[in-house]
This record gives sequence, C-alpha cells and structure tokens, in this order.
Amino acid sequence: MQITLAVSTVIFALRPTSAGADPESGAPLPALWLPLVRRIRPPYEGQWALPGGPLGIDEDLEAAAARTLGATTALAPNYLEQLYAFGTLDRSPDGANDRVVSVVYWALVNSDEVVHSDRNTSTENVRWFSVDDLPDLAFDHDVIIEYALWRLRNKVEYSRIAHAFLGDTFTLAELREVHESVLGRTLDPANFRRQIESTNAIVPTGKRVTGTSYRPPKLYRYNNSAEPVDRGPLGRTDPAEPASPSRKPTA
Amino acid sequence: MQITLAVSTVIFALRPTSAGADPESGAPLPALWLPLVRRIRPPYEGQWALPGGPLGIDEDLEAAAARTLGATTALAPNYLEQLYAFGTLDRSPDGANDRVVSVVYWALVNSDEVVHSDRNTSTENVRWFSVDDLPDLAFDHDVIIEYALWRLRNKVEYSRIAHAFLGDTFTLAELREVHESVLGRTLDPANFRRQIESTNAIVPTGKRVTGTSYRPPKLYRYNNSAEPVDRGPLGRTDPAEPASPSRKPTA
Repeated sequence: MQITLAVSTVIFALRPTSAGADPESGAPLPALWLPLVRRIRPPYEGQWALPGGPLGIDEDLEAAAARTLGATTALAPNYLEQLYAFGTLDRSPDGANDRVVSVVYWALVNSDEVVHSDRNTSTENVRWFSVDDLPDLAFDHDVIIEYALWRLRNKVEYSRIAHAFLGDTFTLAELREVHESVLGRTLDPANFRRQIESTNAIVPTGKRVTGTSYRPPKLYRYNNSAEPVDRGPLGRTDPAEPASPSRKPTA
Repeated sequence: MQITLAVSTVIFALRPTSAGADPESGAPLPALWLPLVRRIRPPYEGQWALPGGPLGIDEDLEAAAARTLGATTALAPNYLEQLYAFGTLDRSPDGANDRVVSVVYWALVNSDEVVHSDRNTSTENVRWFSVDDLPDLAFDHDVIIEYALWRLRNKVEYSRIAHAFLGDTFTLAELREVHESVLGRTLDPANFRRQIESTNAIVPTGKRVTGTSYRPPKLYRYNNSAEPVDRGPLGRTDPAEPASPSRKPTA
C-alpha cells in the first residue's frame, strides 16, 4: 500500500437554465454548471466524477489542474485557485490498493466559451450538470463540490471573482445577475448598486449599451488594480499580497 | 524517482519582545514568534526548517499536522487550518532522489501556554524565532512562512482568529494589542472600538478587570455563535458554512 497524489478540478460556469426566466427580459436565468467525467474503470465504474488524475512526476500541481481542465472542456480558465488537499483515510473504497490524497483546484470559465466548448468536447463520458441537479458521484466528490460551492459563494461577496463570468465590460444588472446566480437568491438592485459602488471594485467606462432602449444602461469594467486570478503563494501580483518572493537557490 | 507527500506546520504564538515597550504599561510589546527545527541530515543539514515530515500511510493529513505540532511544542493548537499544498518542481534541491509535495497547515497557540511549553521542550534543535528575525531556512520554507503570515494578517481583519491568542475574556485594549501585533502596526483605539463593536464578534461579559485602577476596563468574550477552529470542509460547524455532509458509503 502506498500514497498516491492526484489532482482534481471543480470547473464552474454560468449557463442559462430552463428552470426559470428573468421577469424583465424573459431570458432564462443562468445557473452554475460543472462538467463531470464518467468513470470507465473500477472503483465506481460508470459513476460520474470530477475531472482529474494522478500527478505526473514532472508536473507542477497547477499544471496538472490546467491539463485536466483542458482535456475536459478545451478551455483555459478565467480563474484557477487551489481549493484544498483532501486526504482523510476513509475517502477511498474499502479494499483499495492505494490511498489517494487529492489536491483539488477550482476554476471559473466564461459562459460564452462554454457554449462553444460544449459543442466540441461534450461526449458520452463528459457531461455538464447543474449544481442543483448532480448525479451520484464517485469517491467523496460530493463533499468536494459542496466545499467548492461554499468557497465560491463566500468569495463572490468580497472579491472580484464574478469578473471571471463576465466579459470585459458589463452592466450593473449583468453583474448583479452573476451574484444572484452564484448565491442562489435575488438581490435588491438599489442595495446592490450602493454596495458595489462603495467598494471601488468597478469603474464606469463612460460608454453605454448600444441598442434599442430609450436610456441604455451604463457599461462598467473591473478596476484593474487587482489581479482576478489567484495563482497561489508563488504567483501573487495583488499589491495587498506579498510580491513573488525570490526563490532560495538550490544547494 | 517518486513523489513523497509531507506535512509541515507553521505555528504562530504571540510573545513579548524586547524590541519595544507599550508606552502606557511599560510592558514589552508582543510579537509573532514561531518554532523551527534544526535539520540533522542532508539536504540543508544544520539549517532551520518548519516542523514536519512524511505523511504516515495510516495517518490523516490533519492528524499529521497535530502530531508535528505536539512533538515540537507539546501544545494543542487553539487554531489549526490547512494553508496550502506546495508542489512546484523546483522546491527540492537539485539531485534529490524524491520529489516532495508538502501539505502545509498553520496553527495558532496561546501565548501563556508557549512560555510553559518552552521551558519543557526547547532543545538545541528546536528554537522559537521572531518572524521579524528569521534565520536562513531550508527548502522553500521562507516562501511558506511569508504566505502563512499573509493569510494570518488577512484573516485577523475579518474573522475571530485573534481569539486563539487570548484567554476566554479580555479587554478591548488586549484585543487591539493582538491585532496590532499581528498586523505589525498601531491602530487607533477609538476606530478599533467602533469597528469591532459594529461586527457583533465580541460581547461584554458584564465584568471588569479586578485591579487597582479607578475605572477598571470592561471584560469581553467572543460571541460563541461561530467556531474558532476551521477544521476544513469535513468538520465545519459554523452555520454560515455547510454542515458536515454525510459521507458516501464505500462500495
């Protein structure tokens, strides 16, 4: 018996759902979706699991996560962050030869890209599921997804993470809709506007949506003084975080 | 060549320093300290490193962190949380036989306990250092400590983490002093009072410090509706976090 190190990735996208519709626009409300991979060998053969696999001997953890993501969705993530290392003794089935410790990443991908990607990469063994309607999952992947959702919902409230679901510019209504979809509840538009404007997180572009309405809504962009992708302790560029420290030379 | 999984722990305590003194009380200002272990074999023989070692085949990650902590300081932590899995290819010295991926925890211990523990467990090869005056460190442990400090300083501003450095009851001045020591800067007492009172994080006990002063300061305690120890996704009891999900039965 030995310890095997694996890397798995929880990949979130916002996609329209048929469950409801925006009362104003009539468009389907977006919801969180994630891709799962059907296992083709025991244990849990035939069940759905997070994309991932053993860490390559010459592969960085984050590179393994990005490789997994690319193989499953053909997408580069807008956001990629290490979530947690899952390593309890009971997470593998009884009688397994190896004990697996999984370093799990979570990623956000742009919704428009997903629609495109889905056409190209969706196969019998890769499928997108709404987080509200997940199948039976292999291993402890239900626990992992629940934790990733909790992290996402917390982070959307105090960081620029919604950016990963939006284009370069967006209206306040679009930004609010991302927050609502992630949090799974509606937000008061006036309160949301006050709250978001008090944070300096977004700035007006001076432009408005081009279209048909009498008063087209203003377009905003994120304040670029912060970095949307958290690449962990070794790649921080946010001024509030330590600059990439120089590496100790190897002896 | 193979991948070895190790667990290391960054253990923070607040201890008085001789570098300055509180202008009011004349007492030495506390500062953050951490214990390091001198390596007795190559690589980096003779240099200081974080306490830790290979994960046991039948040992949970958190149990390994607690074991390491106990062996180094004879203390149980007031706070223990997984920090990050460090696994870049360049973190081991050239020519090393194995590649090491380290799952790092960070812990907070009560200062009073440290003084006691120090008498019993300080040896030639275990020593406490001020985070402002660290020796040359083995591997990438300087990067790890810098990241742990960043996490601690962020977390003290929005969570109940200062509790781990305090007794059950404390004055506002004592709480402020913990925040100042962690952040490495002084805070305006009136602003600090307003800010902390607006969060509902602490509640007055109705008692005051017994002592000699004419108006002894009020004693507070933390609001017990939240859990001070983050035991990760599997042991959450904070109502804002998902309840411990039931484990999938093994097939």
